[in-house]
Amino acid sequence: MWGFAFPLPAMIITFLTDFGLRDAYVGAMKGVALTVAPQATLIDITHLVPPQDVRTAALLLADYVPFYPSGSVHVAVVDPGVGSARRSLAIRLDLDGAQHTLVLPDNGLAWPLLQQATAYRAVVLREPRFWLPQVSSTFHGRDIFTPVAAHLALGLDLVEFGPPAGELVRLEIPLLRREGERIIGHVVTIDHFGNCASSIRRSDLVAGVNYEVWIAGRNLGPLRRTFADVAPGAALALFSSSGRVEVALRDGNAAQVLGITCDTELELRATRAMN
Amino acid sequence: MWGFAFPLPAMIITFLTDFGLRDAYVGAMKGVALTVAPQATLIDITHLVPPQDVRTAALLLADYVPFYPSGSVHVAVVDPGVGSARRSLAIRLDLDGAQHTLVLPDNGLAWPLLQQATAYRAVVLREPRFWLPQVSSTFHGRDIFTPVAAHLALGLDLVEFGPPAGELVRLEIPLLRREGERIIGHVVTIDHFGNCASSIRRSDLVAGVNYEVWIAGRNLGPLRRTFADVAPGAALALFSSSGRVEVALRDGNAAQVLGITCDTELELRATRAMN
Amino acid sequence: MWGFAFPLPAMIITFLTDFGLRDAYVGAMKGVALTVAPQATLIDITHLVPPQDVRTAALLLADYVPFYPSGSVHVAVVDPGVGSARRSLAIRLDLDGAQHTLVLPDNGLAWPLLQQATAYRAVVLREPRFWLPQVSSTFHGRDIFTPVAAHLALGLDLVEFGPPAGELVRLEIPLLRREGERIIGHVVTIDHFGNCASSIRRSDLVAGVNYEVWIAGRNLGPLRRTFADVAPGAALALFSSSGRVEVALRDGNAAQVLGITCDTELELRATRAMN
Repeated sequence: MWGFAFPLPAMIITFLTDFGLRDAYVGAMKGVALTVAPQATLIDITHLVPPQDVRTAALLLADYVPFYPSGSVHVAVVDPGVGSARRSLAIRLDLDGAQHTLVLPDNGLAWPLLQQATAYRAVVLREPRFWLPQVSSTFHGRDIFTPVAAHLALGLDLVEFGPPAGELVRLEIPLLRREGERIIGHVVTIDHFGNCASSIRRSDLVAGVNYEVWIAGRNLGPLRRTFADVAPGAALALFSSSGRVEVALRDGNAAQVLGITCDTELELRATRAMN
Repeated sequence: MWGFAFPLPAMIITFLTDFGLRDAYVGAMKGVALTVAPQATLIDITHLVPPQDVRTAALLLADYVPFYPSGSVHVAVVDPGVGSARRSLAIRLDLDGAQHTLVLPDNGLAWPLLQQATAYRAVVLREPRFWLPQVSSTFHGRDIFTPVAAHLALGLDLVEFGPPAGELVRLEIPLLRREGERIIGHVVTIDHFGNCASSIRRSDLVAGVNYEVWIAGRNLGPLRRTFADVAPGAALALFSSSGRVEVALRDGNAAQVLGITCDTELELRATRAMN
Repeated sequence: MWGFAFPLPAMIITFLTDFGLRDAYVGAMKGVALTVAPQATLIDITHLVPPQDVRTAALLLADYVPFYPSGSVHVAVVDPGVGSARRSLAIRLDLDGAQHTLVLPDNGLAWPLLQQATAYRAVVLREPRFWLPQVSSTFHGRDIFTPVAAHLALGLDLVEFGPPAGELVRLEIPLLRREGERIIGHVVTIDHFGNCASSIRRSDLVAGVNYEVWIAGRNLGPLRRTFADVAPGAALALFSSSGRVEVALRDGNAAQVLGITCDTELELRATRAMN
């Protein structure tokens, strides 16, 4: 069934912001989108990115965009520099054979996703005819990013929106280092369940080597396949659904119980012992 | 106007999970749904079920599914056993003349709703051609349940997805007991307002008998029709919009003020006195 | 591109409530809407209005409705009087050349938006044929407002739903007073970021006069254009994206840091000094 051909193109716009869920900001953005593209499907990803936390938003972006159909448009607004000289971008990228378009500020938000793209081109948003007639100095999500995204969803070409962007702002994200056969990384996100995903990816491990996972002075043993491989309440390490080495607690909150925070160090030690 | 016939079939998929609202999990699921069924209408029910709380999720499911049009597909993922031997199900049920399809783990989630169905058939999800090409061991919501739901929304028959499920896992939910004309039940859910719904349903009351409602040593008097039947700030008992005996506080939070928690006992005492 | 004509009419229904995000209430409402109008686009504005806080909901309503396309229907349910004698309304209004329909209780919710309308007519909901067959006494959002909204989205005329409403309930909202060239107002909403919007609007300022903004004994200096006009962590005053005088903290939470709450007084003092 996968790859089934549909007669109608997808006209999908997703939204990720730090605007919260209590105010009218997100509702106003959606109204603007539907004014330009009334037939669009609007999808909330999350609006609870910690305020101004560009790094968390950038890592989230890389976790959902690849699951959307080709042709989707993704608005991401975590924008501490709104109203300053920071640039606004539209970026079209090729990812596993699908084409996605991002609309976001030039502050590193797109960086982790661009690392996975086979190709991309970016333009600076400079054509006010695609914006709201009056642009505020504090809410470009509503006044610039969303109407541009809706026009892109209608099928307009990227070059209509402005000139090539050249070099983009990069994001400083925690890396890993290797000491012999040890791999040392950091916790980069803690999810709703308290699961702690690290900067170490499945592809960073050396094939054929068995590892033990250490965090906060505690040996979690080998990488497990799933939660049910340990007793209820026990800590474990496994691959997250995004392919990262992750620390979890079966039926519990690992971050709280183990005292883990973002940036806590995590270590994989090679062992030849059988698991 | 009700029962009006439409030319197009509904292609509706609802989502209930304990995934929270901060992460990319829900966003990834929706992307998978739209990849299979780009024209589907995706509806968030809630993603704030307390982590791993199957009972709360099961009671919620029975409160919204009956209000959806025939042909809707409902994904429910509260899944402490993900990655273990627990089975994955698709269940088609008849409810008040409408047909609904559930896609969920076999852990009791569907149980309260099935009690209300006139008929149902269930299959075990065994056909990987309807799943994501790569299935993680921790996120079957994205990799199995959602793509199956989207194929079901496209109109595929239930039997395509796997063999009959036979006996399903049941849910232990609090019941009520009767002592003479007294009916003793428990609080089963506490909502956002602090309203406390119990295991006693409208249909459990004996016709022609008047009752007084007691909870936490306090007499709330007879069952009222609505909040405005008592003074602001006063406690009352009434039927919830789901037909359960419920304890509330007019313009206030009953759970907090009266110190009620899930499983607090509630009692209906018969009285011949006029209300 | 703005004003582009589309062949299909918008069939958009938005929802604003104080129902929270944990329960099945919102999910049940959406099911009712899709049963009547399966092709409708359903939009969540927010469900986190503080319980029974009609004033906050009314101010939010005025912040998003104007951004929706003509023909949209807006359900707003913050309804402390549910089940009492308070009336249920449908109101059609003209706003900047677009036509919107509101469906809500007659408790002042619509008041700020009606102040901006060039014309409106209101009817009392009295025709049970557009309601659910069984109407509960505590959940008119599901049983009356939503099915009425969905029938309105299908294109039925307002007069079908009941008789003219006559005088509507007004909302007491904080005003401003002038003492010479000083303008004294109050904080009316505090958003997710801690930004504090006041009752003073851009149009209340006297042209050609420069102002300094004072709050909680502190001089915030002149009205700035955007956050980046002050140093990180510094307090400032600027126009909100809704055109209100607003107090903010660059990259921080003004309400928390400055100790501002709803109803805190804010003052604009005229000054001839250059900014």
